[in-house]
Amino acid sequence: MSESRALDAFFKPDRVAIIGLSRSAIDAPISILTTLKDYGYGGEVHIINPNFPDLPGYHVHASLDDAPPGLELAVVTVAREQVNDVLRGCIENGIGAAIVITQGLADADDEGKRLQDEMVALARDGGLCILGPNTIGVADAFSGFTSSFIEAHRETTPIGLIAQSGLFMMGHNIVANEPAGFCLSADLGNACDVSLVDLLDYYETVDAVEVVQCHLEGIVDGRAFVDTAARVSRTKPIVALKAGRSETGQVAVASHSGAAAGEDAVYRAAFHEAGVVVAENAEELRLLAKAFARLRPPQGNRVAVMSFSGGGAILAIDAIEGAGLTLATFSAATNAAIGAHVPAWLELQNPLDIWIPVAKDFHTNYPAILELLLKDDGVDAVICIYCSYTMPKYMDVNSALYIGPLAAKYPDKPVLGWSYGMDIAGMTEEIENNGPAMVFPSLDDAGRTLAKLSAYAAWRDRPAAKPAPEFKVDDARVTNILGRAADTGATHLFSQAFEILDAYGLPLAPWRLAAGAKELDGMAGELSYPVCMKVVSDDIVHKSDSGGIVLGIDGPAALLESHAKLLADVTRRQPGADVAGVLVQAMAGKGKEVMIGAKQDPVFGPCLIVGAGGIYTEVVADFAFRLAPIGEAEVAAMIDDIDFARILHGVRGEDPCHLPSIVDALLRVSQLVVTHPAIREIDINPIIVDAAGALVVDARIIL
Amino acid sequence: MSESRALDAFFKPDRVAIIGLSRSAIDAPISILTTLKDYGYGGEVHIINPNFPDLPGYHVHASLDDAPPGLELAVVTVAREQVNDVLRGCIENGIGAAIVITQGLADADDEGKRLQDEMVALARDGGLCILGPNTIGVADAFSGFTSSFIEAHRETTPIGLIAQSGLFMMGHNIVANEPAGFCLSADLGNACDVSLVDLLDYYETVDAVEVVQCHLEGIVDGRAFVDTAARVSRTKPIVALKAGRSETGQVAVASHSGAAAGEDAVYRAAFHEAGVVVAENAEELRLLAKAFARLRPPQGNRVAVMSFSGGGAILAIDAIEGAGLTLATFSAATNAAIGAHVPAWLELQNPLDIWIPVAKDFHTNYPAILELLLKDDGVDAVICIYCSYTMPKYMDVNSALYIGPLAAKYPDKPVLGWSYGMDIAGMTEEIENNGPAMVFPSLDDAGRTLAKLSAYAAWRDRPAAKPAPEFKVDDARVTNILGRAADTGATHLFSQAFEILDAYGLPLAPWRLAAGAKELDGMAGELSYPVCMKVVSDDIVHKSDSGGIVLGIDGPAALLESHAKLLADVTRRQPGADVAGVLVQAMAGKGKEVMIGAKQDPVFGPCLIVGAGGIYTEVVADFAFRLAPIGEAEVAAMIDDIDFARILHGVRGEDPCHLPSIVDALLRVSQLVVTHPAIREIDINPIIVDAAGALVVDARIIL
Repeated sequence: MSESRALDAFFKPDRVAIIGLSRSAIDAPISILTTLKDYGYGGEVHIINPNFPDLPGYHVHASLDDAPPGLELAVVTVAREQVNDVLRGCIENGIGAAIVITQGLADADDEGKRLQDEMVALARDGGLCILGPNTIGVADAFSGFTSSFIEAHRETTPIGLIAQSGLFMMGHNIVANEPAGFCLSADLGNACDVSLVDLLDYYETVDAVEVVQCHLEGIVDGRAFVDTAARVSRTKPIVALKAGRSETGQVAVASHSGAAAGEDAVYRAAFHEAGVVVAENAEELRLLAKAFARLRPPQGNRVAVMSFSGGGAILAIDAIEGAGLTLATFSAATNAAIGAHVPAWLELQNPLDIWIPVAKDFHTNYPAILELLLKDDGVDAVICIYCSYTMPKYMDVNSALYIGPLAAKYPDKPVLGWSYGMDIAGMTEEIENNGPAMVFPSLDDAGRTLAKLSAYAAWRDRPAAKPAPEFKVDDARVTNILGRAADTGATHLFSQAFEILDAYGLPLAPWRLAAGAKELDGMAGELSYPVCMKVVSDDIVHKSDSGGIVLGIDGPAALLESHAKLLADVTRRQPGADVAGVLVQAMAGKGKEVMIGAKQDPVFGPCLIVGAGGIYTEVVADFAFRLAPIGEAEVAAMIDDIDFARILHGVRGEDPCHLPSIVDALLRVSQLVVTHPAIREIDINPIIVDAAGALVVDARIIL
Repeated sequence: MSESRALDAFFKPDRVAIIGLSRSAIDAPISILTTLKDYGYGGEVHIINPNFPDLPGYHVHASLDDAPPGLELAVVTVAREQVNDVLRGCIENGIGAAIVITQGLADADDEGKRLQDEMVALARDGGLCILGPNTIGVADAFSGFTSSFIEAHRETTPIGLIAQSGLFMMGHNIVANEPAGFCLSADLGNACDVSLVDLLDYYETVDAVEVVQCHLEGIVDGRAFVDTAARVSRTKPIVALKAGRSETGQVAVASHSGAAAGEDAVYRAAFHEAGVVVAENAEELRLLAKAFARLRPPQGNRVAVMSFSGGGAILAIDAIEGAGLTLATFSAATNAAIGAHVPAWLELQNPLDIWIPVAKDFHTNYPAILELLLKDDGVDAVICIYCSYTMPKYMDVNSALYIGPLAAKYPDKPVLGWSYGMDIAGMTEEIENNGPAMVFPSLDDAGRTLAKLSAYAAWRDRPAAKPAPEFKVDDARVTNILGRAADTGATHLFSQAFEILDAYGLPLAPWRLAAGAKELDGMAGELSYPVCMKVVSDDIVHKSDSGGIVLGIDGPAALLESHAKLLADVTRRQPGADVAGVLVQAMAGKGKEVMIGAKQDPVFGPCLIVGAGGIYTEVVADFAFRLAPIGEAEVAAMIDDIDFARILHGVRGEDPCHLPSIVDALLRVSQLVVTHPAIREIDINPIIVDAAGALVVDARIIL
């Protein structure tokens, strides 16, 4: 679907046709008819079914041919064998939009995939706009329309929901005893036509939507998503849960919704670039959407804690520091003022254990201390830990009386609440109804949410990124090498990878190619020893596993000996491998091994990778990812994202490594993979960096 | 307190004195009198207060002198200035046990610490057993006695609770709408006398306690805890939350309860050894205690999932794999039988998306499929994802009808439930009341809990550990070196560290000491080059920061040059440092750098550490900890706990490193720190290991 096609027909149709409904749907609990009625839809509903009885309040027709013109939307629930015929009928009838609830298409077997391909062609050729198949459809609290067969609550929470599963489109609104619903919701299903990007575009235009909440299993057009999401989230925060993180999970994703899931790290890089706030699970998704809808992001990371219990205060510290926030330091004035409310022996420090003043005079001390914290310039947010006992006898010690109103008085400082154990007295509702505060099921949730609110604000307010530099490189040479590789069907480039990197100005350790002993003999006198020797063979992927590497060759005699030994070892360990020659390279000096890489991600296109190099690459998952191309500042930030950066900056009196060389190399690799998409993967490992500069020692390109 | 003193006087007193109660406590909501009445205590309550009115049902006395003999327990709530006088009165009256609720002792300032020291002396000299101070005390659902001023629910959930904070002793029982309470509970407070170990000993003897739940802020006698917990948890699982993980958190712990918190890693090592199940936060503590009380640990890690929603099924995969569990593979027979309930195009795979059969015929298909999964020999546990809609119209699709009863039929296979959003219709209770199943607030919680149940069973059923070997070593030499260091007040040993390791048979790279140029000149002809040179100085801790290391010295001439340069550099960078000489050492060959260490933990005593060595030690938090001494098998397991073990086992065609050398070195270090507790810390970094063996290159001992 193109961006310009509006989705109003799905959300605010005046006349709807329902096709495929059986008589048993009448008064059934799980039925679109029941849901539409309960949700309060006021438009015309046309039921298309030759065997359906007359039903007061509905228009029943034997077939679409009998229906009047002017129907805006069809909701289709027929079996998969009939679905495309029905859609043809819709096109003939002039209906412009269809929600296809039918399952068993690309979410199922090969026949289902074939039927869905046919459906896509129908949509394209007939100008029909399709949501689904395998969807529950939409709900719109303003128009009162929903295609769901499960009841929705008609609330106008300023959240626009996009889900790739009915559970997440409908689920939490109906079962959660908290105001965390939605005003608009859509289930993408298999997303054969109306896409995630279409819905983002649409929600951007709806004023009532202030926060977008996404449950995603896979994205098809990653770059369009990043561009759209980056634009939308500047004014409307987007929170997203990406399901299917594990490898097995990704297999199930593929079979569930027909969309291939990308790798988790690449998704995170894309979300980072687009300012999308990442939820780690279903519960956090709900909490984050609610938090962004209720709370203004804090100005900073300094958190004050006031707790009915010292034990709770200590847990708050763990939660705050675990989330990367810091404990606020109170001003002297704040401490002096709090001091008036507590015994002299009580230490005035954050977190504040307020049990004694609370037990002594709750109604004076509780609001006074909370307001002192909110007024302190060194405090960006406050976490309140209270008791939510439910017995009437304790209702006099009710923090809800004060938290909401004081939060409303200081709206730039989020107030977060927690009590140990579940709240069953409606205290959460009382707090949240009284002001822009929010109660969390755990302190860790409160800390993580605060950190994400703060990180979003930093993203939104960051300076504009400078564009990536354009290096003068020898693209003709690269095109030529890639063309030759394509001709021979080569998929793994090794010595040609050195040539490509050379053409792009990367700093290579001096190297020479030799087809055999004769060429080696010819160059032996010109080399500066020690050198190393690596086998060149399209058949050998892991050179060290095959005896194809000799290190520390210290002179001409050893050079020829090493060559003979290398050939013998390779022949023994990998018989039949076609050896084109050897690459002779100056041994790299001491330095730190870094890994630089790039790949064409099937969803998001070219991505850059940097990490700890050498053998550590295999063991320590210490990588940072970004989408390419990116500018210099972001590359520097990317390097600082890896733990290994501490070593590169110099530890224990070591000189710092020359990071500009690594930045330069990453920028050149970025330009390379963006310019030459035929390069599917590139691994530079290691590039060795010391205080003076960097040198590429080994590299591999996969086409 | 000694192990033999029973705590019955605290939990089941027949006659209690309450000292320090004011008139305002009568009928107040926050009052021990109110709580005792509501909890249903039937014993004699003696109120000691000269100004208290007569109160029906209570015995009021002006002072303890007026009270009858035979009082078993005193509950003391007077101000801190009077508390020790009151305790003296208790001793005179023959009362053997006191719960001291008073705050402001070691939890506060220096005066409070002094008063608590006085209290400890009183307890010891007067034979008085004290719980607290700074405690809420106890609750016992069987005797009906509690000293709490906050109401407790009288339930007999087979959980014995131990907390270091009133919040955790009382909190969840009263507010949680789930059966996760306790039958016995105690708040240790400042634990000046009755200790964590005493309570574990006591709960071990109470048949009604099947699971022990601990909230801990710090442990005083770590070894006694480990020994007791290891014994108790063989029959009664212990779940524990250690609050105060972060560094700031630990400062607050010290000031909160007067107990020093140990480092998180050492706590985890201790819990691991004792089979204690670790909770990461307050919510997980509650869930784990409930899970161990309700569910039998599974026989293995293979989990089946049946879900109302495909979207939920994918999240279950993320949760299962994130917790280190595996997705069960169904048998052919199971698949064939399930096939009878689903359309042909639906793929039969785990996780099972059962929406279609559920929507078609819930009451046939739901129980049939669940039972098929429970019967499959390849399934160890089942996660059920269902909808818990609360409207009467959906009550026919009620999974609670079947989950509990089927869980009861297959009690060796835990059944875990989850629905998206909070349950407000009592469905959780219905499921849990019908059988040994359990509902979780998130899929991640379900996965983590299952993994911890399974890990506990593996710990419980593990083979007995073999004792640590005893090496023949030269302890006299070590004692001599340590004695000399003590005489000179040295705290950092460097060349002496080499001597100590030599005495313990660790493999050292050949080394010689030279006081100055003359000694160097004398040995220059005997060294096998290349060598390195390291400064020997008590004043220099980080040798490389001070220019105190020269590498790659290739002959006698360079040896003397390097010495002059080293002295000049050290003098320039650390003027005034007292240089005793230099250590000359053969350069180590190529190999992998490992770090081995040990420390005397203030709580748990000697601990061993192994990790990635060299500069990686500083950056990658890749360590494993164990309490010393330990046997060979556990040392091997410890090494496999670090990520770096993959490199040691050989990656990319490299020969594996000689791990027995590392195991041997760790065992010798273990014996060293156990035998010589004067060694506070030892760092061997790196010990370089290759295919043939290991060589210690650098070491440091701190006294």
